[in-house]
Amino acid sequence: MSGRISVGCKGPLTGGIKEANAGGQGAQVLARLGYAAIVLEGKPHDDSLYKVVLNKDGVQITPDNSLRMLGNYDLIDKIKEEYGEKVACISIGQAGEMKLAAASVAFTDMEQRPTRHAGRGGVGAVMGAKGVKVIVLDDNGMKMRSPQDPDKFKAANKIFVEGLRKHPVTGEGLPAYGTNVLTNVINEAGAYPTNNFSSGQFAGASKISGETQAETETARGGVATHGCHKGCVIRCSGIYNDKDGNYLTKQVEYETVWAHGANCGIDDLDAIAMMDRLDDDFGLDTIEMGATIGVVMEAGIIKFGDEEAAINLIKEVGQGTHLGRILGSGAAVTGKIFGVERVPVVKGQALPAYDPRTVHGIGVTYATSTMGADHTAGYAVTANILGVGGTVDPLKPEGQVELSRNLQIATAAIDSTGMCLFIAFAVLDQPDTFQALIDMLNAFYGLDLTADGFAELGKSVLKNERDFNARAGFTSEHDRLPEFFRKEPLPPHNLTFQVKDEELDQVFNF
Amino acid sequence: MSGRISVGCKGPLTGGIKEANAGGQGAQVLARLGYAAIVLEGKPHDDSLYKVVLNKDGVQITPDNSLRMLGNYDLIDKIKEEYGEKVACISIGQAGEMKLAAASVAFTDMEQRPTRHAGRGGVGAVMGAKGVKVIVLDDNGMKMRSPQDPDKFKAANKIFVEGLRKHPVTGEGLPAYGTNVLTNVINEAGAYPTNNFSSGQFAGASKISGETQAETETARGGVATHGCHKGCVIRCSGIYNDKDGNYLTKQVEYETVWAHGANCGIDDLDAIAMMDRLDDDFGLDTIEMGATIGVVMEAGIIKFGDEEAAINLIKEVGQGTHLGRILGSGAAVTGKIFGVERVPVVKGQALPAYDPRTVHGIGVTYATSTMGADHTAGYAVTANILGVGGTVDPLKPEGQVELSRNLQIATAAIDSTGMCLFIAFAVLDQPDTFQALIDMLNAFYGLDLTADGFAELGKSVLKNERDFNARAGFTSEHDRLPEFFRKEPLPPHNLTFQVKDEELDQVFNF
Repeated sequence: MSGRISVGCKGPLTGGIKEANAGGQGAQVLARLGYAAIVLEGKPHDDSLYKVVLNKDGVQITPDNSLRMLGNYDLIDKIKEEYGEKVACISIGQAGEMKLAAASVAFTDMEQRPTRHAGRGGVGAVMGAKGVKVIVLDDNGMKMRSPQDPDKFKAANKIFVEGLRKHPVTGEGLPAYGTNVLTNVINEAGAYPTNNFSSGQFAGASKISGETQAETETARGGVATHGCHKGCVIRCSGIYNDKDGNYLTKQVEYETVWAHGANCGIDDLDAIAMMDRLDDDFGLDTIEMGATIGVVMEAGIIKFGDEEAAINLIKEVGQGTHLGRILGSGAAVTGKIFGVERVPVVKGQALPAYDPRTVHGIGVTYATSTMGADHTAGYAVTANILGVGGTVDPLKPEGQVELSRNLQIATAAIDSTGMCLFIAFAVLDQPDTFQALIDMLNAFYGLDLTADGFAELGKSVLKNERDFNARAGFTSEHDRLPEFFRKEPLPPHNLTFQVKDEELDQVFNF
Repeated sequence: MSGRISVGCKGPLTGGIKEANAGGQGAQVLARLGYAAIVLEGKPHDDSLYKVVLNKDGVQITPDNSLRMLGNYDLIDKIKEEYGEKVACISIGQAGEMKLAAASVAFTDMEQRPTRHAGRGGVGAVMGAKGVKVIVLDDNGMKMRSPQDPDKFKAANKIFVEGLRKHPVTGEGLPAYGTNVLTNVINEAGAYPTNNFSSGQFAGASKISGETQAETETARGGVATHGCHKGCVIRCSGIYNDKDGNYLTKQVEYETVWAHGANCGIDDLDAIAMMDRLDDDFGLDTIEMGATIGVVMEAGIIKFGDEEAAINLIKEVGQGTHLGRILGSGAAVTGKIFGVERVPVVKGQALPAYDPRTVHGIGVTYATSTMGADHTAGYAVTANILGVGGTVDPLKPEGQVELSRNLQIATAAIDSTGMCLFIAFAVLDQPDTFQALIDMLNAFYGLDLTADGFAELGKSVLKNERDFNARAGFTSEHDRLPEFFRKEPLPPHNLTFQVKDEELDQVFNF
């Protein structure tokens, strides 16, 4: 489960600290090459586009303007011709080259496709500003890493894997239906933001659910249960083929299905998959793009539910038209330019697929996370909806601050290990799985981390991030949801967001 | 000199407190109608565009969608047909209707033309968001206001007017050449920002100077010395005709000549006057638009010096094209969308026509003003360049914080009186003129204001504004110039901005 990789920078969307993480092969290959991190400092003095190659002999940085304005798919095909089928790539598409604030950094998956993205916050724009189009990681000639204490590691790993397999979320729901298993669950809870956060239920939910998606994938010769990197135990990904059985994109994630689906009133999985493919190709955050198109629909420029128009909007971004540049700059800028008042962003970053009026805990995380609106920073959907890690009534303000605080601390720690965040479901519910995680880390690195030390690690990460943001000019005034969440009741529960500002300001009191 | 009017709101460009002020007839007519202020609260429930009429009988608010997307000039012609030649109007053009963040609020002048603008900060977008296209002020049947003590008022006024007439700036420079008298002065000082703040001197300065402008106006049957409202003593405005002797626009202000001229490498007064006319018609801040076009030139989309392309860019805003909406959203948003790093803004508002690297005092005002970059908030060009109100070396950091602080306090007080800020030249240099100002205010309103009380008024205004901004999320981190002013030395003096952050943080210590 240790195949995650993080991209960090000052974020183009928020102006604050940004960490976006992704799966794919990059993390494992980079580690095998012996690097803990790649740091890009400064930028070239010319306008050339650069290729960086890391292999057993070291690092080569060479200009290669033939790569200019290639989409990620064409780019990787070109890299494959030159470096073979075993290298892993980190790359940007057209959006990153244009330095658009919704640009992602792509990582190749097991099939060497650029489908895994450090999506959020515009990290691709920073890579573009540094003139780096692609980083090729070639571990040919390198050996697998060894734990400091192989026996202890093996024993802990066995308990850990068993823990993941026996938990209903990581052992059943995610493998069978992927993250999109959530669509029916969240829709039933009345928390599924529809038509730019105007309703909490979407009439077309079942047509785009994980169940329908898995069935479609299997029927078309795709794959419904698939890892995003080698060795994954959960395997929540998959492969989505078009109607003719040809590869279109990876199994579209829950957040993407929502962003391009319910949030835009679209209930056609093929249209959503096409938008996912385009986002991956141009190098764009799917959540930000879905929210942005929702804002464009709110402005009346295209209609809710018009999938063809929505697909064309994404194409505008790849082409770099004026409209495309607006959209590629994210929902906040798009709202400003088109005079829209209902814009679902915090600190300039779009909200993900859970309405804070019906899942109050995630609302606290959206408002207060150092990252801007980010569900992964403290996924309170666990105790609010899924009954994981306890139970906290999602419709009431009570207990949400503590829930979000504890999850934000735990998440910062888990993210720091390079483990997939989805282990959290099992770790939160099963003390022996949590202990196995700590034992694995200690055995691999020769550490003596404890459960308390793990929480302290999370706290220190959050403190550093808060300090960065304070120095970047953030105050408690930025730890707020957009006003309309306090003013407009959301059907079907007809609630507004009820957690008080003073309570939000207590999240980081630890 | 009391014909100024203020427009206030939370500013679309900065997100903080915003006060933009203008000349024209609006202030006098409104006062004669017996109103101290018009407050627009909330907004209509429908999408209609509204006309507000204030006359001796009261207030009428009526929808009038026939006014939709009219430019200010056509709008005022229409209003004139219905309400005659004596009403004063407050209005927005297309930019305000589109809620673009560079939109201004227009006030009609003595010739009933919409040439006087509350330009800065996007106040027109707020009027647009409230659905108000025009406010018609009709003082027919109302009488002139009387001072509480007419004799004392008359006596003080006499001294005051004499003070203005005997000061070289208000009695000679401004009447003869208007605000554009500054072009040669600032260019010679090496402080005239050229080609998006890349140089402090512009080769074409003399072609666009106040001297050339006055000569052109006179030769074409325009007017070189003209008040923007009735009764003005300074008369720094004028009327600019085209080559055929037909009215084109009012005498273009110094800041506009610079923004659309030197800042864009353009040295043709007629082209600049055309851009001024278009800005007034669409309802756009000329400083913001000039800075924005400079950023577009920096991005390489059009070339520095290409006046035809620059004119066409402004037309795009009026047409509401996607590019036009980007530009109409100001320099900061435009820079973000086109990936430009050298963007001259503070708190999201564009810098005016004095480079902070060569006029350090104004740099302190730009950085710290509650308004975003604003020369009028503390016009340190006085002591830095003009030798008014003392002398402080413009090229060094010493003494600039104190200078800016004192001017910000004095300006806040003067603006609060409704007097034209240009009285400050005489008031700063001549104690009897300052005393006459206070005597006039006391005689008119029956107050017992003192010189100290006047300074306290200024301080309390600034404290209120700072408090507003703190609650809107501003910190000292926002009281900073863009990084490039500290990194890039400006020819010909080859200096960077030298006032330290810790010193900037002392401006409001009073």
